[in-house]
Amino acid sequence: MFDEIMKKVYEKTPLVHSITNYVTVNDCANIILASGGSPIMADDIAEVEDITSICSSLVINMGTLNERTIRSMIAAGKKANELRHPVVFDPVGAGASALRNDTAIKLLKEVHFSVIRGNISEIKFLASGSSGAQGVDASAADAVTADKLDSVIYFAKALSRKTGAVIAITGATDIVADSGKAYVITNGHTMMSKVTGTGCMLTAVIGSYIGANHGNILDAAAAAVTAMGLCGELAYKKLCEIDGGTNTYRMLIIDYMSKMNTALLKEGAQIESR
Amino acid sequence: MFDEIMKKVYEKTPLVHSITNYVTVNDCANIILASGGSPIMADDIAEVEDITSICSSLVINMGTLNERTIRSMIAAGKKANELRHPVVFDPVGAGASALRNDTAIKLLKEVHFSVIRGNISEIKFLASGSSGAQGVDASAADAVTADKLDSVIYFAKALSRKTGAVIAITGATDIVADSGKAYVITNGHTMMSKVTGTGCMLTAVIGSYIGANHGNILDAAAAAVTAMGLCGELAYKKLCEIDGGTNTYRMLIIDYMSKMNTALLKEGAQIESR
Amino acid sequence: MFDEIMKKVYEKTPLVHSITNYVTVNDCANIILASGGSPIMADDIAEVEDITSICSSLVINMGTLNERTIRSMIAAGKKANELRHPVVFDPVGAGASALRNDTAIKLLKEVHFSVIRGNISEIKFLASGSSGAQGVDASAADAVTADKLDSVIYFAKALSRKTGAVIAITGATDIVADSGKAYVITNGHTMMSKVTGTGCMLTAVIGSYIGANHGNILDAAAAAVTAMGLCGELAYKKLCEIDGGTNTYRMLIIDYMSKMNTALLKEGAQIESR
Repeated sequence: MFDEIMKKVYEKTPLVHSITNYVTVNDCANIILASGGSPIMADDIAEVEDITSICSSLVINMGTLNERTIRSMIAAGKKANELRHPVVFDPVGAGASALRNDTAIKLLKEVHFSVIRGNISEIKFLASGSSGAQGVDASAADAVTADKLDSVIYFAKALSRKTGAVIAITGATDIVADSGKAYVITNGHTMMSKVTGTGCMLTAVIGSYIGANHGNILDAAAAAVTAMGLCGELAYKKLCEIDGGTNTYRMLIIDYMSKMNTALLKEGAQIESR
Repeated sequence: MFDEIMKKVYEKTPLVHSITNYVTVNDCANIILASGGSPIMADDIAEVEDITSICSSLVINMGTLNERTIRSMIAAGKKANELRHPVVFDPVGAGASALRNDTAIKLLKEVHFSVIRGNISEIKFLASGSSGAQGVDASAADAVTADKLDSVIYFAKALSRKTGAVIAITGATDIVADSGKAYVITNGHTMMSKVTGTGCMLTAVIGSYIGANHGNILDAAAAAVTAMGLCGELAYKKLCEIDGGTNTYRMLIIDYMSKMNTALLKEGAQIESR
Repeated sequence: MFDEIMKKVYEKTPLVHSITNYVTVNDCANIILASGGSPIMADDIAEVEDITSICSSLVINMGTLNERTIRSMIAAGKKANELRHPVVFDPVGAGASALRNDTAIKLLKEVHFSVIRGNISEIKFLASGSSGAQGVDASAADAVTADKLDSVIYFAKALSRKTGAVIAITGATDIVADSGKAYVITNGHTMMSKVTGTGCMLTAVIGSYIGANHGNILDAAAAAVTAMGLCGELAYKKLCEIDGGTNTYRMLIIDYMSKMNTALLKEGAQIESR
C-alpha cells in the first residue's frame, strides 16, 4: 500500500490548512513540508473558509484553543465538509478541562472528520465523555498493553462506525482503524514522549498524506503513523551515535521525515492488519 | 557597500519591533539576534506604539493575521512613520484570501513602508490586486525566469516609484530595487523552500539591517537578501557533509547568520546592479 | 541540596501549567520535558482554572501579553493561590511599555508569587516602578558588577520580604534570594544572550523544579538557575567542538537539560550562599 500512498503525496504536494496550537506550530509546518506537503496556518474567522477552499485537507488541533479559534475551527470544518476535503482532528487534552471537553463534543457534532488521532485517553474521552487523562498525556491506566489490544481494536472499530472517521490511537502500540479493518503498528520509540508535539506533528503528517489520497483515507493515515514511528526509530539510532539530547532528537525526527521514501518505509514498517 | 552596512549593524545592535506570525516567530527572533539586532515581539494595541517608539525599526508580517493584530499593525506602522523609523512589510499569502488582500491594501494605504519583501506572486498582488498565488508560495507561472528578468526589474522599479518603498522580490533570483536602481542577487539554494519561514526570517534580517542604516535602505535591504541567500548556501554545504535533513538545515541557516561577517559576505555575494 | 530537589522532580514528573508568550513557547515546553516535568500550555479564560487545578505549578510569563491573556493570568494565578500551588512570574519587558508596567503591578497585587525571575532591569522596575530597561534586555547601567553585588543581594532580600516571593535576578551573576538567605550563582555563558528565550526557559525550569518541591522553593529555584547556567556552559563547550552557531547552541542548551542529573549538577555548580 505504501507505494501508491507515497507516490500521490509527491505528485500532488498537497496544501494543508492547519488551525493548530502555537506551541508546536513551527514543527508542524516543517514536518508537513518534510512529508511532501505544503502548510498554510490561518485561524481568523474572516479567512478560514477562503484558505481551506484552496487546500487539499484541513487539520484541526485544539492544543491551545480559545473562543476565537473554536469558531474558526467549526467554520473551516464545515467548509471543508462542503467541499469534500478530508479533515483530521487532534483532540489535544480532551478530558483535561470543561472547555476542551465541550469543544471536542461540539466539533464532533458540527464537523465530519475523516480521521481522528489522539492518545488512548483522549480517544476514550471522545467515545464516552470520560477518561483517565492527566493533562495532555495518556494516563498509565489507559495504556494499550498486549492483553488489552483486542479490546482496543474492537473499541476503535466501533468508534469509527459511530463517527464515520478513521480512528488513530497512538502510543507504544498504534491502532488505525475504520469500521471494518484495523492496522496495528509497533514502530516508534519511547523517547518520542520527551519531545513536545510528536502527536501534533503526526496529525500534521496525516493531513499531508490524506490530502493527496482522498480515496484511501485508512491506508494514508496508517502510512503516516508508520512513517512517523519509523522516523522516531531512525532518529533515535542517529541520536545515540552523536550522543544528543531531546532537542536534537526533535530535529532529527523532522529530518528523517524529509528523508522518508517508499523503500525506507517498506523496509522499516512494523504493521499488520486485523 | 557591505562594509558600511554591516559595521553599523554591529555598532548599533538595532532593536527590531516585530508584529509577526506565530508559526515562524521563534526563528525570526533568533535570526534577528544572529544578524546583530535585538528582537522585541509585541502585538497588543495597548502597547505597540510604546514598543515601536523605543525600537530602531518595525517589521510587519501578516502570516497569521487576525482582526486584533491588524489594528495593531496599523497603529504601530503609523507611529513608526511619525518617528521616521523604517518599516518593512512582508505580505505573506497576499492573494490567498480576501482578508489578506484587504489587509495588504489597507496597510499600503495607511502606512508608509521603507521595504516590501515578498515572493513574486505576493508582490504582483500588491501591484495589481491579482496574482497566480497558491497559498503562501509563489506560483510556477509567476516564476522569475531569465527571459522575464528585465521585465520584473522594470516592474519592481515602477512599484517602488508608486509606493516609495524598496521592493524586494525573492525567489531563485532575487531583485531588490528602488525607483532608480536594482540589485539582482543569485545567492540562495532551492532547499530553502523546504524550510518554513525562510521568507519571514529574511524580512526579519532586513528589519535588523535597515534598523541600523536609516540613511541607506536600498543597500541595507540588498545586503540582508545577499546574506540570507549566502547562509542558505553555506548551510547546504554543511548539511551535505553531515547528511542532515530539512530541520537541521533550518538550524544551520540561522547558525550561519550568526557567523556572517563582511569578509564572508564579500567573498560569497553574487550580486550585480542594474 | 541538589540531591533532594532533583530526586523529587524525577519522582513526581510535575505537571506545569504555563501561560506564556508565543515566541519561545516551544522551547519552554521542551525544556520542561527535558527537566523532568510535563508541560501544559493553556491560556483561555474559560479553562485556565481547570488546567491549573490538575497541575503542580503555574508559570506566568508576560512576553507577548494581550488583553485576553492578562485576564487569564490573573484568574489562573488566583486559582493556583487558592490551591496552594506555587506560581512563578517572569515579568518580560517590565519597564518597556505602560501595558507591561501596569500588568506587572496588577499581577503583583492580585496574585501571590512563589518566585519572581527576571533580569536586573525588570526586577528593579517591579521594586520601584522605574528602571533603565531597553526593550527586553537588561540595561548596561543596571548590570550586576562585583562592586554592586552586596547591594543587589540586599535589594533582592528586601524585595522578597515585601512580596513574599523568592527573587531570582539572572545575568552574568545570578542571585536567588528569600528574605533571609541568598544564593550567588556564577554558572552560565555570555553566549546565552544570543539565543532568544533563555530567560523564559529558565523560568519554565523553575516551574518544573518548584512543582515537585512545594516545601523548598528557595533551593528548588536556586537549583534550576544553577542547572540552566550549567547547561549553557556544557552546551558552549560542545558548540566549540562542532563549530556551531547560535541556533545549534539553543538546541544544545535544551539537550543538556535532558542530560542533567545530580552528579553533573554537583560537579559543575558554582554556587555560594550569603
